[in-house]
Amino acid sequence: MTDINSLSPSVIEEAHRRIAPHLHRTPVVESERLNEWLGSRILFKAENMQRIGAFKSRGALNTLLKMKEQNTLPDHVAAFSSGNHAQGVAWSAKKLGIKATIFMPDDVSTVKIQATKGYGAEVVLTQGRKDAEDKTQAMGEKGAFILPPYDHDDVIAGQGTACYEALQDGPRPDAIFAPVGGGGLISGTWLAAQLLAPKAKVFGAEPQTGNDAARSYRQDEIFRWDACPETMADGVRTLAVSERTFHYIRQTSGIFEVTEDKIAYWTQWLTHLLKLTIEPTSSLPMDAAMQWLQETDSGKTILILLSGGNIDTAARQTVWRENLLTCPPVHKF
Amino acid sequence: MTDINSLSPSVIEEAHRRIAPHLHRTPVVESERLNEWLGSRILFKAENMQRIGAFKSRGALNTLLKMKEQNTLPDHVAAFSSGNHAQGVAWSAKKLGIKATIFMPDDVSTVKIQATKGYGAEVVLTQGRKDAEDKTQAMGEKGAFILPPYDHDDVIAGQGTACYEALQDGPRPDAIFAPVGGGGLISGTWLAAQLLAPKAKVFGAEPQTGNDAARSYRQDEIFRWDACPETMADGVRTLAVSERTFHYIRQTSGIFEVTEDKIAYWTQWLTHLLKLTIEPTSSLPMDAAMQWLQETDSGKTILILLSGGNIDTAARQTVWRENLLTCPPVHKF
Repeated sequence: MTDINSLSPSVIEEAHRRIAPHLHRTPVVESERLNEWLGSRILFKAENMQRIGAFKSRGALNTLLKMKEQNTLPDHVAAFSSGNHAQGVAWSAKKLGIKATIFMPDDVSTVKIQATKGYGAEVVLTQGRKDAEDKTQAMGEKGAFILPPYDHDDVIAGQGTACYEALQDGPRPDAIFAPVGGGGLISGTWLAAQLLAPKAKVFGAEPQTGNDAARSYRQDEIFRWDACPETMADGVRTLAVSERTFHYIRQTSGIFEVTEDKIAYWTQWLTHLLKLTIEPTSSLPMDAAMQWLQETDSGKTILILLSGGNIDTAARQTVWRENLLTCPPVHKF
Repeated sequence: MTDINSLSPSVIEEAHRRIAPHLHRTPVVESERLNEWLGSRILFKAENMQRIGAFKSRGALNTLLKMKEQNTLPDHVAAFSSGNHAQGVAWSAKKLGIKATIFMPDDVSTVKIQATKGYGAEVVLTQGRKDAEDKTQAMGEKGAFILPPYDHDDVIAGQGTACYEALQDGPRPDAIFAPVGGGGLISGTWLAAQLLAPKAKVFGAEPQTGNDAARSYRQDEIFRWDACPETMADGVRTLAVSERTFHYIRQTSGIFEVTEDKIAYWTQWLTHLLKLTIEPTSSLPMDAAMQWLQETDSGKTILILLSGGNIDTAARQTVWRENLLTCPPVHKF
């Protein structure tokens, strides 16, 4: 069992002080039409406009900057990722002037390889997940620091700064929604809420096809997949949350499950209404909010964390195969 | 011949004072990666994030608000448009509390009809352009004010406020690029540049398949199509510029022509790099800037007007049919 320290919400403040000078303060945006349709106010923290196009730069940078403060900055960092974590680590390592090696499965899209290399990282393509994990491990044994995607206190604290900023910049929400993969973002979000909006409910959102966090929440025990779940929401295809993140997840108000149809539907509608490029994972918390609104009164203020905007052409073609903009979202009581 | 008053650049200031309280001050954004690749600084005025998702709300609102100031506000406004002008007029009329009737060709996409109706306008579908023009005309004869898409001084002044804001908010550019359809935006942009950046070059950009403004500029006489040109850039499928807008267009530094391949290429790349939803028309000035950069030195500061973000599913499918993100843009000297 991992040794878990229950973090004090104040770590979010510390992380924010540390990383804010290097990152964008992304805007909190909303759509008047959506608000009218739903009879509630929906605020979106646009982390798609963050450095590297996703919130993942926050946690990675916080971890490395804290190591630097403590004079333990490694000269080489390694990570395994097919997604935004790869870019987050590459970008942060470049910022700190250290070497980064990123192991990516060989079916990853060119545009993601390009972006990761663009931040100066060495990219090593591997044959699937197991091979990548083994190679990352081996590099760790040779002295590189392995920066985990979520199972690390400083990563969690960094990810929480997105919600922290949104709570400072926008009105107090009744509920906050974030996608759940390994649980880093939702854990940090829960901590940030304790600090600035302790009365707000915090909900997670995950694909129905990969509902391990929802199952874990229900049975109060971590559920683990044997293989990565299939979903359009490629940012959350993790096998399980960790004990560290489950510690916070079990304290949230719950996890909503989102169908693939709804992932496509909300990716289209939010892209259309907000005029932002979002990745399918960012649509999860919006559908979760809709589910919650069906159960509650209108007139709510809701904060949605748009996790990122890195969608490749293949995913885009899948999402936009059919026109889903003919049927606008409305709140049905 | 239309009676043309050469507007003083100060009309842009007046228009801005009039309309700014009702509109978004849209951000000026940039991409570090694009800047690195091109060796120049490219600033984008994000009018895709403007009310109605395009700059067209500026000119329509300026026209109606000025009429109100002069106690000549009509109780009914009519317009013909299959695009952003429809929404601009509908939204502005709602703002002023007057009735709007919009004539749209019956092949217009559902999402545009929805949006226009959503702003409270009556939408009348017509059989093609001629029918729509006749019906708009007839409604004008019955007393409605016909709000033209570009051939009006107050429309031009309103459109110019986008560039005006960008010049106030960002660094002084060496060159400014805007798409050209009927010429309202480029005319207002030229006036705004005279006011705040008189040394900056102002260039227009239009599709090669609909290069009437470029031809008009070259022969110094208005060239007119018999039928709407076919192009992905559906915001600029006009038959010709007007004498009023040509007065300003001939004073710009020129018009660049953009191929359909490049329209798709830049729509993909700007959507990807800026994380914004843009319509294909917004890609025109970016390609024009690239063409200009090929002829000049690097280290330039360039302002691009992203005209709008209203792209429907069919257009999106056309733009993203092939993956064009495998070949990043680079500056070739």
